[in-house]
Amino acid sequence: MNNRHHSFEAVASATGDPFLLTPGPLTTSETVKQAMLHDYGSRDNYFIDLNEGVLNRLVKIVDGQSTHVAVPLQGSGTFVVEAMIGCFVPRDGKLLICVNGAYGHRIAKMCEYYDRSYVIQESNEETPVDIQELDRILSEDDSITHVATVYCETTSGILNPLKAISEIVKRHHRGFLIDAMSAFGALPLSSKDVYFDAVVASSNKCLEGAPGMGFCIAREAALENTEGNSMSLSLDLYDQWVAMKKNRQWRFTPPTHVLLAFDQALNEFDDEGGVPGRGGRYQRNCDLLVKGMREMGFRTLLSDELQAPIIITFHMPKDERFEFSSFYDQLRELGYVIYPGKLTIADSFRIGCIGRLGTEQMNGALSAVRFSLDQLGIKERIS
Amino acid sequence: MNNRHHSFEAVASATGDPFLLTPGPLTTSETVKQAMLHDYGSRDNYFIDLNEGVLNRLVKIVDGQSTHVAVPLQGSGTFVVEAMIGCFVPRDGKLLICVNGAYGHRIAKMCEYYDRSYVIQESNEETPVDIQELDRILSEDDSITHVATVYCETTSGILNPLKAISEIVKRHHRGFLIDAMSAFGALPLSSKDVYFDAVVASSNKCLEGAPGMGFCIAREAALENTEGNSMSLSLDLYDQWVAMKKNRQWRFTPPTHVLLAFDQALNEFDDEGGVPGRGGRYQRNCDLLVKGMREMGFRTLLSDELQAPIIITFHMPKDERFEFSSFYDQLRELGYVIYPGKLTIADSFRIGCIGRLGTEQMNGALSAVRFSLDQLGIKERIS
Repeated sequence: MNNRHHSFEAVASATGDPFLLTPGPLTTSETVKQAMLHDYGSRDNYFIDLNEGVLNRLVKIVDGQSTHVAVPLQGSGTFVVEAMIGCFVPRDGKLLICVNGAYGHRIAKMCEYYDRSYVIQESNEETPVDIQELDRILSEDDSITHVATVYCETTSGILNPLKAISEIVKRHHRGFLIDAMSAFGALPLSSKDVYFDAVVASSNKCLEGAPGMGFCIAREAALENTEGNSMSLSLDLYDQWVAMKKNRQWRFTPPTHVLLAFDQALNEFDDEGGVPGRGGRYQRNCDLLVKGMREMGFRTLLSDELQAPIIITFHMPKDERFEFSSFYDQLRELGYVIYPGKLTIADSFRIGCIGRLGTEQMNGALSAVRFSLDQLGIKERIS
Repeated sequence: MNNRHHSFEAVASATGDPFLLTPGPLTTSETVKQAMLHDYGSRDNYFIDLNEGVLNRLVKIVDGQSTHVAVPLQGSGTFVVEAMIGCFVPRDGKLLICVNGAYGHRIAKMCEYYDRSYVIQESNEETPVDIQELDRILSEDDSITHVATVYCETTSGILNPLKAISEIVKRHHRGFLIDAMSAFGALPLSSKDVYFDAVVASSNKCLEGAPGMGFCIAREAALENTEGNSMSLSLDLYDQWVAMKKNRQWRFTPPTHVLLAFDQALNEFDDEGGVPGRGGRYQRNCDLLVKGMREMGFRTLLSDELQAPIIITFHMPKDERFEFSSFYDQLRELGYVIYPGKLTIADSFRIGCIGRLGTEQMNGALSAVRFSLDQLGIKERIS
């Protein structure tokens, strides 16, 4: 492919909007967006039934029927992560946070706001949570009541060993809280395999709805013990759960259009074959992208076995002609939005492979990258 | 009109959905909903500019250019009310809450969660905030740092005397916090007339966007002093403001589709002539509805001078044939969703007159009410 001018043929999205190769907001299907063309009252029976159906399907995704419940919450993913921490860690509890990226650190920040005791077990951003160290810390510190982990840290795109972590946490009889924001629906997470108190995610990541709400799936027996823990009325998942059990309604105005989109997104998730189907497509996206980028000379931060098929971090090329902001703008012009890096350890950028994207869009993105390198005067493999 | 069977001709909405005569979620225009048919990245320049434009227009609505700033927040209206209370009342401050309905009490509940000192000045649900009493309380209690009021209490639909309250509060040099959720954009609220530290409202009330975000318009000099007050990371308006000043982006994933809808809703708000235009239509809706309902024998809770043109509370008829849930279902069937009462002092129901509704829908709703009474066997004036 070197030493010739590469042409580019744009693959337009159905709406003419650029494809979002980011950690979110993501590209959603046309039908998901069209579901938002209706206004419903939040006390309307149609809406109430739809809401209940959404929650039941979320519980089913983790095989939690009869043991687990789903509680929705307005806001972004961070809102429901904070709500989980605030509800499940009692005021006199202590949280161990397994950190290998910005989202782990964000949980620590929440504890600071809430004045909850916490301790951090930190690994490098390219290193998964260390199971042996976790075991050691829990053995040594009886005062730790809960452990929190991010399933896929989108800071780097790394996969943490959720099942192994949960086994250690369970053996030590502590509560386990999972931020599965960017992984839920694409990576396996069954309550039969992973023993957790609560897991949180949002409508807009791998479930491919519109952003605007999150949800917590909790072991009912654990949620029952959270009364009075929350420091915030709006973020009180216990209060939301109890109120919703009574009248099947949200306590405060729900984002009705986002709910309608989420219901449609879950239909499409089922149609694709649930987690294996959705995760399978993302894995194909990831493989295609990594292969194509490596062929052009880009280097991934992570080795393949640590890489979740969610978002891929690439080292910033050293080539002086590679100017990231021009590269980004050119890709945007061609219809592909990528993402800046968030690493502290290395200069990098990220390309996501989730959302309503498949082979065609991945190939399109690769062509656009090739074209953009050309525009920067880089016609050979980049280094 | 008595003693004959009334026929009913349904006025369908553009989408075929029922009209929402509620305090929200509301009926929005087709074009507002269609704005949600696009996916944008939250770091995309187009989106960033749109977001900034929305915030600037919100400030302009209160004539706050150069003195005030708007800070958006994910979630329902309650989220941003809580955020305002948590940010503006310092941890060692004390809040006086003027209460004449459920939303005032909700602010007290937030103070309980946050362990903030507060005192309640309560009036009956059909009585506006008492100015003389407010003056007396502020004179007697120096430890009160802030006063919070609900502009239009949708519990009853009552209008509180915002300007008079603000004058008392200003004279006593306390901070003034306004929950203008159901009034913002329809009732006058200029920073030139009403001296406030912060006012909050949401995208989905009188501005007729989709639900999913709120906003706080703050006097910049007051907001600058709120650093470190918030007990919640997600709800920290100061942190959101500072971050957005730096890079014009939301700290955490914004509800992008809701923002797109809000931008379009503000275009339509401007097209209608801003507050006078929007408020004028609602006033005509209100007048039509009250007149028509009174003609059928229904009685309003409030006298006309206390009634905000937002939502109207009607006494539940004493007639034994009037069964509210059948009445409600019948109206829903005919395409009009009304709202149950929320009063503690009297059995009641409510009909809203905000959202994308005009004369045609008000007349349609009145016909549907007449038809529904017929169905209940009530052919004469109800009592």
